[in-house]
Amino acid sequence: MSWLKRLLIGKPLENEALKDEKYSVFWGLPILASDPISSVAYATEEILLVLVPAIGVLAFHPLTWISGAIILLLAILTFSYRQTIHAYPNGGGAYVVASDNLGKYAGVAAGSALAFDYILTVAVSIAAGTAAITALFPALFYHRVAICLILLVLLFIGNLRGIRESAKLFGIPTYLFIFLVILMIIYGVIKVKFLGYVPPTPVIHLKGVVEPITILLIIRAFSSGCTALTGVEAVSNAVPNFREPTVKHARSVLLLLSLFVFLLFVGVSLLANIFHVVPAVGKTVLSQIAAEIFGRHNFIYYLFQFATTLILTLAANTAFAGFPLLFSVMSRDGYAPRQLSFRGERLNFSNGIVVLTVIAGMLLVLFRGDTHRLIPLYAVGVFISFTLSQSGMFMKWIRSKEPGWVYKAMINGTGAVVTFVTVIIIGSTKFIHGAWIVILVIPIIMATMLKIKRHYQAVAEQLRLQPEELENLDLSKATYRNHVIVPIESVNKASIRALRYAKTISDNVVAFNVAINEEAEMKFKEKWNFLHTDIPLIVKYSPYRKVVSPLLDFIDSYEEHNYTRGDMITVILSQFSVRAWWQVALHNQSRFFIMKDLLKHKHIVIATMPLQLKQDQVVLEKKRKNEMDQREAEQKLPKN
Amino acid sequence: MSWLKRLLIGKPLENEALKDEKYSVFWGLPILASDPISSVAYATEEILLVLVPAIGVLAFHPLTWISGAIILLLAILTFSYRQTIHAYPNGGGAYVVASDNLGKYAGVAAGSALAFDYILTVAVSIAAGTAAITALFPALFYHRVAICLILLVLLFIGNLRGIRESAKLFGIPTYLFIFLVILMIIYGVIKVKFLGYVPPTPVIHLKGVVEPITILLIIRAFSSGCTALTGVEAVSNAVPNFREPTVKHARSVLLLLSLFVFLLFVGVSLLANIFHVVPAVGKTVLSQIAAEIFGRHNFIYYLFQFATTLILTLAANTAFAGFPLLFSVMSRDGYAPRQLSFRGERLNFSNGIVVLTVIAGMLLVLFRGDTHRLIPLYAVGVFISFTLSQSGMFMKWIRSKEPGWVYKAMINGTGAVVTFVTVIIIGSTKFIHGAWIVILVIPIIMATMLKIKRHYQAVAEQLRLQPEELENLDLSKATYRNHVIVPIESVNKASIRALRYAKTISDNVVAFNVAINEEAEMKFKEKWNFLHTDIPLIVKYSPYRKVVSPLLDFIDSYEEHNYTRGDMITVILSQFSVRAWWQVALHNQSRFFIMKDLLKHKHIVIATMPLQLKQDQVVLEKKRKNEMDQREAEQKLPKN
Repeated sequence: MSWLKRLLIGKPLENEALKDEKYSVFWGLPILASDPISSVAYATEEILLVLVPAIGVLAFHPLTWISGAIILLLAILTFSYRQTIHAYPNGGGAYVVASDNLGKYAGVAAGSALAFDYILTVAVSIAAGTAAITALFPALFYHRVAICLILLVLLFIGNLRGIRESAKLFGIPTYLFIFLVILMIIYGVIKVKFLGYVPPTPVIHLKGVVEPITILLIIRAFSSGCTALTGVEAVSNAVPNFREPTVKHARSVLLLLSLFVFLLFVGVSLLANIFHVVPAVGKTVLSQIAAEIFGRHNFIYYLFQFATTLILTLAANTAFAGFPLLFSVMSRDGYAPRQLSFRGERLNFSNGIVVLTVIAGMLLVLFRGDTHRLIPLYAVGVFISFTLSQSGMFMKWIRSKEPGWVYKAMINGTGAVVTFVTVIIIGSTKFIHGAWIVILVIPIIMATMLKIKRHYQAVAEQLRLQPEELENLDLSKATYRNHVIVPIESVNKASIRALRYAKTISDNVVAFNVAINEEAEMKFKEKWNFLHTDIPLIVKYSPYRKVVSPLLDFIDSYEEHNYTRGDMITVILSQFSVRAWWQVALHNQSRFFIMKDLLKHKHIVIATMPLQLKQDQVVLEKKRKNEMDQREAEQKLPKN
Repeated sequence: MSWLKRLLIGKPLENEALKDEKYSVFWGLPILASDPISSVAYATEEILLVLVPAIGVLAFHPLTWISGAIILLLAILTFSYRQTIHAYPNGGGAYVVASDNLGKYAGVAAGSALAFDYILTVAVSIAAGTAAITALFPALFYHRVAICLILLVLLFIGNLRGIRESAKLFGIPTYLFIFLVILMIIYGVIKVKFLGYVPPTPVIHLKGVVEPITILLIIRAFSSGCTALTGVEAVSNAVPNFREPTVKHARSVLLLLSLFVFLLFVGVSLLANIFHVVPAVGKTVLSQIAAEIFGRHNFIYYLFQFATTLILTLAANTAFAGFPLLFSVMSRDGYAPRQLSFRGERLNFSNGIVVLTVIAGMLLVLFRGDTHRLIPLYAVGVFISFTLSQSGMFMKWIRSKEPGWVYKAMINGTGAVVTFVTVIIIGSTKFIHGAWIVILVIPIIMATMLKIKRHYQAVAEQLRLQPEELENLDLSKATYRNHVIVPIESVNKASIRALRYAKTISDNVVAFNVAINEEAEMKFKEKWNFLHTDIPLIVKYSPYRKVVSPLLDFIDSYEEHNYTRGDMITVILSQFSVRAWWQVALHNQSRFFIMKDLLKHKHIVIATMPLQLKQDQVVLEKKRKNEMDQREAEQKLPKN
């Protein structure tokens, strides 16, 4: 198994290698941008899906305005987050900024919202990638859950390999997609403006009559399009993952990311407008545009479809970068299991990667790979964290009053207000479509995190040494008696070994045996007497053929009678250390039940004595040889 | 969970209750007969399924002869097994008889064949019962695996409740089925002979022309019908499960069982002949006969269908009685994990019941509840065990030459020859239909059993105390030094507790710490110095952030330098004993990895020190109160 692990994940990296594992601008961009850039593949479509059924071909007019509003929101977010990166060079995720400036509850709320969002991102992206694959090969539809899980495992392995390698592994498809969309935009505009191509008139089947263009409709379309902005916060979260100078590199990546999203999103919306493409069953808007421009059934069209599939799947990668980082910070503060703050062999937060993979995998299996319905949910979580983060920054400037604070507070304040309004819009328009789940789940995650924090506080409090305790400490000599109980099943080498060890660590040793009936007791005592030992033997009957509970009862009664306050009781348990895994099943594992129950007792130590078994073959051959020797000796004897 | 267990399984029974848990003839019969009697529901059909497609309506002539041959086989088996029961009052399953008289390999072969057969019986019976249910309610077809598992769990719980209760639980349906079939036979004969009912002429669609009646055809039909005889051996296996006088009761049950199988099987074949019923898609032969006689869509017909469903499912019960008993005997001889020989709380061999349930459950899930294809397989296993058991009995009489041995040897010899011929017939006619699986699986089971036996022998050899060792034994004093290593993560109450315990059990104590870098080392040493202890401290760096391997490396190097032959090393590991299950996830479980690796070392003892944590709420409230008191005190101080 070890060589397989090495092959898949690579050899362990030393601590010093951490600096080599950091992002350059070129390779950091695709990791952190894959989520927002992939949303170009469906954001325009989401808007048209709201507009077209209501107002038909008139949809393309508001499309322009709505795209403009989203781009404006993107610009505000970009400027706001560039300030955050500057102010928090050690990683200014929404959690850090909110807890720093708005208090721990706001921080935990932001963290919960982001955690929820990251998990959904992984599940939804993989489901989207799988849907693209099964659209190309319909025969695979019945295996979609398996495909989802294979993609998930590939992402998992790639991310376990470490930051640098996953960046290269997953960066190329992102650049390929960007390149192809830009190519399509340029060629599409040339085709219509200069080559005189006339796009076909769209055929739209309206359900009813054309509705009037209402504000509610525009708002609903806008909130659907906001999915294009998820993932923008990942850069501010990941500042310490960049090479020195981290802040400069992170800010460059954020700017580039916004530029690319701007370019691609506007371009695709423009093309949708020019070519009058509307959503159709089984055909995405993007694939229809590509077909119009590149033509169907040729290499470039298939390459485009392939790149789209890849980028949809790789959107999960932003979450794979963000989730472990977020939890490493939160666990260092005690809000998550502290194992999540350990760097693994490859210097990434591997436990966080495992947790994310397992939960996303369960979601994919639970929804049978059809997590598309979850798309509306996850914009809510992101915008909640946007709002908390921006409000936090706003408060920071207000309080610090450092040079230029008014300008900075204005930018972040605008960000806070705009994203808050967006939360309200998305939350209310999508409430019955699933946003209520967010309102249910995020408080549950919050409560769990706060409970974890309380547990760690309580543990620390119980472990804390008071100064007066330290002063009176004297470790130079034993201060209490140690009573040793040795449960013995039969008189053999293992039990002799345990008794001998018991004698080494204490003068108060008791042997203990469980007998099914009187006959078994007699038999055992007979053997015991051969030992000629001064160790007292206690035998208990077990009317229900149980072994564990009589031992526990004995310890209880022993504690009552022979025990003085402060003493310890050591129970010695022998354990066979077998040669092959299947042999474990051949030995009674009641030791585990005994341990589980004993660990609940105070003042108890469980000493496990392994007994290394030799290979069966070796032992039996030696035995056979001994027996043959003996027989030979016996046969020789009468002759002499 | 405990109350649920009590509710489902009942309260534990004392050892003395064992005699009450034994079979009477009346309740033992349905448990042990459910398998052979249930085969009446399909044995005739299996014969007709071979004959009708080949020779059409002419099938009913050979049917009579083949049924007769099977009945003759049943008679021979009954007489043979009555002798076995008499000779082996402690349970004369094929395993015991064959190993006693033909050697251990024959015994293990018989045991493997039976084990395989019992597992298949459970899977096939439950699949058959489920098929009957989904035939009545087609909407349930998509949930058939779930239905299979529910039935399996019901049988599992019923059998866990113990012998007596499961006998009553499962006995009534068996008697109901017997009663209804006899009623049908009597009323069917009356209806035709006395009431002048004329059965309709059957419509048979032959695939091709009518084939001649060949010996091969007859042989194939015969081997299909032999499934009626599976389960006959269960009685001889279960002799000790009967009340005193066990032998007499067991022989009565075997005789009654044979009589019932004879009556029902001959009766059903007769009715099939009279009513010219042929297998049809979706309609079993038995249900067609019942419909002809009782009429369709009335209470008695539905009751009959219901009883058939129940008996098909309950056939599994014979295996639930036989499998745990077989394995209890084999495990006592060392051929199976010895846990299988322990009686559970309800005095049955509960571990065997669990194993059978789990394997059968896996088969049902694997074959998605469609294990019907396995039916042909499982007659082969049974007849192999028949042959071995009868040959064993034959050898026994030949060797013992006790009064009447010639007569007895003739009966068992005939049994051996006839069943051996049947094995050859079934094995060859069904070879490509799956009998090859038997030839593959049984040797694998055999090899596993022999390997297990070798392991137990090797372990016993290693634990055995030589007489000279016993003589030189002196347990009155310690004969070696005990070195104690205390891994410490930070200086706190838990580590102080561990160090103090270490001092109690030995004078050679070393503290051990893993640091990620020099800074961490400095910090730790600073705290350590506060302790003013003479215990030496060793700090190791961990370049790959691993904790387990530096400790193991240290132990290795420690063994090399400070260790003299015969010494022991004790490693003390602290463990939090948490209050709630979810808190386990909040603490680093590296202790398990350390233990797993340490257990491979010789001369090592792992002492686990549990630290009982108090409830988080209680600790934190106390802390808050202390802090408030302190603040109050501080505020008062300046006033004074």
